[in-house]
Amino acid sequence: MFVALVHIHIKAEYIDPFIAATLENARNSIQEPGIAQFDFIQQADDPTRFVLIEAYRSDDAPARHRETAHYLKWRDTVVDMMAEPRTGIRYQYLLRTSPE
Amino acid sequence: MFVALVHIHIKAEYIDPFIAATLENARNSIQEPGIAQFDFIQQADDPTRFVLIEAYRSDDAPARHRETAHYLKWRDTVVDMMAEPRTGIRYQYLLRTSPE
Repeated sequence: MFVALVHIHIKAEYIDPFIAATLENARNSIQEPGIAQFDFIQQADDPTRFVLIEAYRSDDAPARHRETAHYLKWRDTVVDMMAEPRTGIRYQYLLRTSPE
Repeated sequence: MFVALVHIHIKAEYIDPFIAATLENARNSIQEPGIAQFDFIQQADDPTRFVLIEAYRSDDAPARHRETAHYLKWRDTVVDMMAEPRTGIRYQYLLRTSPE
């Protein structure tokens, strides 16, 4: 298992539709067998900044995620809402305390 | 509940002792009643970079965490290992998919 932190910065006028689209994507993504966690968080002191915490069960799970209808819909819906390109960084777990 | 992402950049010669000290702190921290999650992750393409994913149950839980013996020991142990000051950013959950 590993985790990706995806940092997203949205134009201020798109906060509400971005949240709606991303909630829909996250709720579908957590149903994928390859995804163990898909948390969606908003920065407390800057509501235009978000992070997705995506825990994957296998190396091929991200590619399968990017083939799903819900991911493709989300990607196309939010592309013009972004203030700058999103960044995804992969990490390995040294300690995972989230029970499954 | 809310979450803090703490980004830490360590001097390369301290990777192993930093991991040992932080595992000890994380394993003690997850026992605190105010802490729901305390994941410790290492960047895949840069082993000197780490993130702590700290989920707190209440607003006063971080202050109580910083009063614990294990936090104070960790803080003093790792202070000289850091390549730059660590940054902690607070987020609210829009969707938390990690079961407790």
